This record gives sequence, structure tokens and C-alpha cells, in this order.
Amino acid sequence: MRMFVVKYLFFLLVLITFSPIFATRTPFKKSEPRKRIVLYYHDILFRGNYTANATSAEVTKPTGLDQFMQGLMVVFDDLVTKDQHLHSTPAARAEGLYFYNTKTAYSVWFSYTLVFNSTEYNGTINIMGADMLMEKTRDLSIVGGTGDFFIARGIMTFQTEAIEGFKYFRLKMDIKLYECH
Amino acid sequence: MRMFVVKYLFFLLVLITFSPIFATRTPFKKSEPRKRIVLYYHDILFRGNYTANATSAEVTKPTGLDQFMQGLMVVFDDLVTKDQHLHSTPAARAEGLYFYNTKTAYSVWFSYTLVFNSTEYNGTINIMGADMLMEKTRDLSIVGGTGDFFIARGIMTFQTEAIEGFKYFRLKMDIKLYECH
Amino acid sequence: MRMFVVKYLFFLLVLITFSPIFATRTPFKKSEPRKRIVLYYHDILFRGNYTANATSAEVTKPTGLDQFMQGLMVVFDDLVTKDQHLHSTPAARAEGLYFYNTKTAYSVWFSYTLVFNSTEYNGTINIMGADMLMEKTRDLSIVGGTGDFFIARGIMTFQTEAIEGFKYFRLKMDIKLYECH
Repeated sequence: MRMFVVKYLFFLLVLITFSPIFATRTPFKKSEPRKRIVLYYHDILFRGNYTANATSAEVTKPTGLDQFMQGLMVVFDDLVTKDQHLHSTPAARAEGLYFYNTKTAYSVWFSYTLVFNSTEYNGTINIMGADMLMEKTRDLSIVGGTGDFFIARGIMTFQTEAIEGFKYFRLKMDIKLYECH
Repeated sequence: MRMFVVKYLFFLLVLITFSPIFATRTPFKKSEPRKRIVLYYHDILFRGNYTANATSAEVTKPTGLDQFMQGLMVVFDDLVTKDQHLHSTPAARAEGLYFYNTKTAYSVWFSYTLVFNSTEYNGTINIMGADMLMEKTRDLSIVGGTGDFFIARGIMTFQTEAIEGFKYFRLKMDIKLYECH
Repeated sequence: MRMFVVKYLFFLLVLITFSPIFATRTPFKKSEPRKRIVLYYHDILFRGNYTANATSAEVTKPTGLDQFMQGLMVVFDDLVTKDQHLHSTPAARAEGLYFYNTKTAYSVWFSYTLVFNSTEYNGTINIMGADMLMEKTRDLSIVGGTGDFFIARGIMTFQTEAIEGFKYFRLKMDIKLYECH
């Protein structure tokens, strides 16, 4: 019996000795984020007409050669809420830029920071990626974070919830962090 | 003999117990990417003259104080192919922006997304970095990915292949992923 | 005694067998970066008046609706030094963009590359994040790197050191790398 245990131990040891080579940098499982936060992003755009509550501003004009606004660039400090209502308690701010980058479809490119400063979270999440507006959901990369989201990585999925011309839109942000510290 | 095995096992165990501290976060080896993809990026720029097949557009003008185009910013939805020919089957789209950022040399700064939607790959790769045009090769960072490139990281090396004034250029992209899931 | 050792070994083995699940992707400790570099960033801005030594250029104008410069975007190839003096030996260049993104406070958003080309370091560090100018320190994300900073990750903390209107400012950059290879 004792001999059996020793042999079994030896077998296990060999297994373990070589397993770390494969075990380190364990692959993330898409279906199992370590943290998930759903928030809503509200963009109220200023494009020349006075809008007291506008939180984003057009900085370049579309080229005008197409109907898809190619060339329009917007910088923003937009409201982020926990539910779909614009007047709910702010959960974060979204600060960054987006621009319409193609002349054959509504497609924008985003790079921005979610800034949290509440009792719940303190810190930032940095996001970038393409946002093909005509698709139901679009995945962008979470490339870093600070504070409560210290060196986070993951995926942020956009889903369009409401569009009112080029004055207002609301996006659902499904934030999935696979690595956080 | 049995005692020897037990002692040996004990020694091994001590080794293993402490090794994970060093073994986790194994360093990536530059020479051994886990995946490597070579693609070609074609930029056809619209700068005021009609170009039916232009895929990028100037959004800001150069300051005009130097010969190096400082201040010229371009947004793009450019074609990416597997070989050097513009009319080959598209392998991906490159969506993002670049701008000339210096007045003493031809140097641009890029931030963009490779969007794959083919039988081979589905997903995106997010890239950013400086591109000093006068150097033979330039390394940019792969900071994230989605879909088939889920939370990828790595290096993308640019190499200029062709330049036709400010109307067209082709870059070779050597994509090296060191972490993918 | 021997039986005790065998039992002890078995217990240890069970512990080790399951520990790798938690041990891999060891959390980074905020207080213990693997590498720390302090540098100073100098921005000398060209805004229409001739400035021979300007290293950054305004590419879009502020909307003019507020006092906080919302809409002003700047591209730069700025000097980075080891100490606070503008005329010290350059340690790196900072290449990228920033823009004022809000109409209710001085707040900018940065995305840039530190380009090192010295006897000490060769390579790049890529950084992005929000920079709320009114706060004493601001954390941005280090999202990637090349060369000596191959696939680096970490936090870069900005601290304002000097402001001379919109013509010059100096920021202290506290670069903390938690992962480098």
C-alpha cells in the first residue's frame, strides 16, 4: 500500500512539474469574465446649434462626399448611467473621441476613458475599437485601467439603444473584465 | 530505497511549492510569437480632388509651417490584402486615424482597428503607436483584440512598400501575437 | 514516521494540484512596479503666432462656447527630459495627440507614444487615458510597448509642474511598469 502511494505521488509530481509550462498564462474563457458591469452611455452632440445640455462637440466636419458622415470627429465628456434614463444618478463619465471613418456605411471609431468617481468605484477603464453601427452588437477592447480597475483587460460590447438624428444617441455598454487585480 | 524516494519527493515538492511564484507570468520571447500574420495595408487618400476609390479622408489641414505635413490628420477605412495587390480579395479592413505629428521629419502616429470578417478570421485587432516613416521598420503595439483575437497582445511591424505622393501608400504589416486565447 | 511524511506529502500535493488555478495570472501589486522611470514632458504649443521652438500644433479650434477650450485638439512631437529643464539632454520624444474634451472643467484626453532612442533605452511605450488637469495626480494606462519595453503594461501618473498660459506646460511622468519582458 505504502509503495502504491509513493508511486502515485511520483506520478502526480511528474504531472505537476510539467504542467506549469502550460498552466501559466491560463487562457481567459469568453463566457466567464471576472467582473461584469452594464452601463448606459448618453451622447448629446453640439453641431452648431445651441444645445445647453450638449456634452460632446464636433471638432471636424464631414467631407460631404457621402451620406455616412465620413470625416466628422467628435470629442466628448459624456454622461454614463446605470439605467437607461438620462437623468439618473451618473455612474461615470465617458471621455474621449469618436469619428465617422467610412463613406460606404455608418461606422465610427472610438477611443475613450470611463472615469468612475463614486462610492461604488474609483478609477478609470480605457477602451478602443471600431464600432460598426449597423451591427446589433460590437466588441471593443478594454486595453487598460487604473484605480479599482488597475491594469484591467477585457471586452466592452456596444449595443445601440436609441438614436435621435445626430443630436442624441444612447448605447448600452456591457463591460466584461477578464483580468483585474 | 523507499526512504530515498520519499526524500526526493520532498525535495521536489519544496521546489514546486516555490516555483509558481516565478513561473507565473512567463516572459514572452520576442522570437517566438504564438501567431503570425502578414498583411498589406493600402491607403488611398482623398485631399480635395475627387478620387472615386479613396478610402481615407483628410480631416485637418497641415499647419503649413514645415514641409513635413505636421497637423494633417486622416481618418480611414482602408483595404487590407494578403498580398501586395490592391485588387486582391480583401483580407480585412483597417479603420482608424493617423496624423503627421512633427515638423522636423516625416513621422505619423497611428491608432486603428483591423476588422476581420472572412472565412479565415472573425474579430478585430487593436493597434497603436508611432510610425517614423524614415525608418525601415517600425514597431507598434497590439493592445487588444476581440473574436478570434480575443484579448490578444503583441507587436505589429510596419514596413513601407510603396508611396505615390500623398495619394497612395502601401505598408506591409507583420502581425505578431504573443498572447491570444 | 515514514507514514507521516507520506501523508504530509499527499496533503501538500493536493494543495499544489489545485493552487495553480489561482496562482497563474498572479495579481500585480500597485506598490511594487517591476520598473519605474520618472521623466518630464515639455509641451510648447503653436497656436497661430510664430514660435520657432514649438513642438506641438493646434489642429482643431475650441468651440468657443465655454472657457475650458472644449474642442481644441493638439498633435505633438514633444521633448521629454530626465530633469525639469527644457534644455537638458533629451531622454525621449512624446508623440501623439491630446484634446480638451469638456466644457465644464479643464480636462484633456491623451493618447501618445514615448519614443526612446538613447544609450539607456531603445523602444516605445504606448499610453492612453483621461487627464483631469485640476487634480493633483492623474493615472493613465500604459497599454503596450516595443523594444526594451516589449509588451509592457502599467500606469503612468501625470503631475502638472508648470503652466504658462496655452503656450507651455511641463508635466512630470511617473512611469510604473508592472509587466515587462
